[in-house]
Amino acid sequence: MRRKEFNVEEETEIREFLQEMSIGFLGTAQEDGWSRVTPLNFVYDGSFIYFHGSLAGEKMKQMAQNNKVSFTVAKEYAVIPSHFTDPRLACPASSFFKSVMVRGRVEKVDDLDEKAHVLALLMTKLQPEGGYDPILASDPAYAGHLKAVAVCRIVPETMTAKFKFGQNLNETKFSGVVDGLQVRNRELDLDTIDQMKKYCPFHREK
Amino acid sequence: MRRKEFNVEEETEIREFLQEMSIGFLGTAQEDGWSRVTPLNFVYDGSFIYFHGSLAGEKMKQMAQNNKVSFTVAKEYAVIPSHFTDPRLACPASSFFKSVMVRGRVEKVDDLDEKAHVLALLMTKLQPEGGYDPILASDPAYAGHLKAVAVCRIVPETMTAKFKFGQNLNETKFSGVVDGLQVRNRELDLDTIDQMKKYCPFHREK
Repeated sequence: MRRKEFNVEEETEIREFLQEMSIGFLGTAQEDGWSRVTPLNFVYDGSFIYFHGSLAGEKMKQMAQNNKVSFTVAKEYAVIPSHFTDPRLACPASSFFKSVMVRGRVEKVDDLDEKAHVLALLMTKLQPEGGYDPILASDPAYAGHLKAVAVCRIVPETMTAKFKFGQNLNETKFSGVVDGLQVRNRELDLDTIDQMKKYCPFHREK
Repeated sequence: MRRKEFNVEEETEIREFLQEMSIGFLGTAQEDGWSRVTPLNFVYDGSFIYFHGSLAGEKMKQMAQNNKVSFTVAKEYAVIPSHFTDPRLACPASSFFKSVMVRGRVEKVDDLDEKAHVLALLMTKLQPEGGYDPILASDPAYAGHLKAVAVCRIVPETMTAKFKFGQNLNETKFSGVVDGLQVRNRELDLDTIDQMKKYCPFHREK
């Protein structure tokens, strides 16, 4: 899967992936040709990517100069060693992963009620168990904090997803990787097999 | 720790961290102001960051236009819920992580022996168990592959590291977070406590 227009099922998968992942990498570019890649916590509501930060930070300065940003989220599932499929050459060594890349314009969120709403979304994602008073601009305990924090929204112009799980392998190599992962059985190896079966064309067709 | 000049101990910690992490995020910038953040496997040999890719890919095109790149590696250890230290407000919610950010110039590695050496470094990192013939430009089984793959080297101009483990917390809040992590006991929570104790100023001074 690597395209810019998604069907409903793909939209759901992308949204679930972005909900599962805690950090993403924001790319900003300066006029002098230097870029910056900043890791940050984020939340995606199906339309926008939101994050917060310090009003005085370097990334806020860069975004004030240039609102064109990129944003990438990636999760590596498994390093695939060459010997799963080839006893001699190192070339088939690979890595299976999910990634989503966004390109868009960043906007500062200034309205206090909207800021409170975004921070509540972030908290629901990152602290689902709750354990805090609702974030409201009308709560004097929150008002000062809301003014002091920078909240941003990326308005996506393009979004591409790559879920790489051996879709290009023939059936012999595919089986070699599945067997290898099964025996190795590291943390995400069995999950990786599930993803391989889900995304591989000849499994889908069956 | 967040600075550009490191002492020997910090150098070692950064190198160990970059050796432990499998993927990093390359930032490239185009003349039109758009940036791109590409996740990729990499290896750091103490001087350069190396990666490989397709000669025809989008990131190679951008780097041919502009050799100024950034490169960021980050690992989130723990999302710190607000209720570890505050029964009411969401504000203390935080995230503890290690990150290393590099800014430098990218160069293509064209010499076949050097390419072979870089790919061998990558393999040693990602497939330490071996299980393949040594990668040598003189081996005809490898020669064609070596010509077809793009190998790049980032020459760092600046490197900054941020290891954020509650260094700014007072002793009461520090204990609250340690206790909370101990009870929660998720995957990296006990590791996080170790890192907190390692990096916190008043622990260091004792």
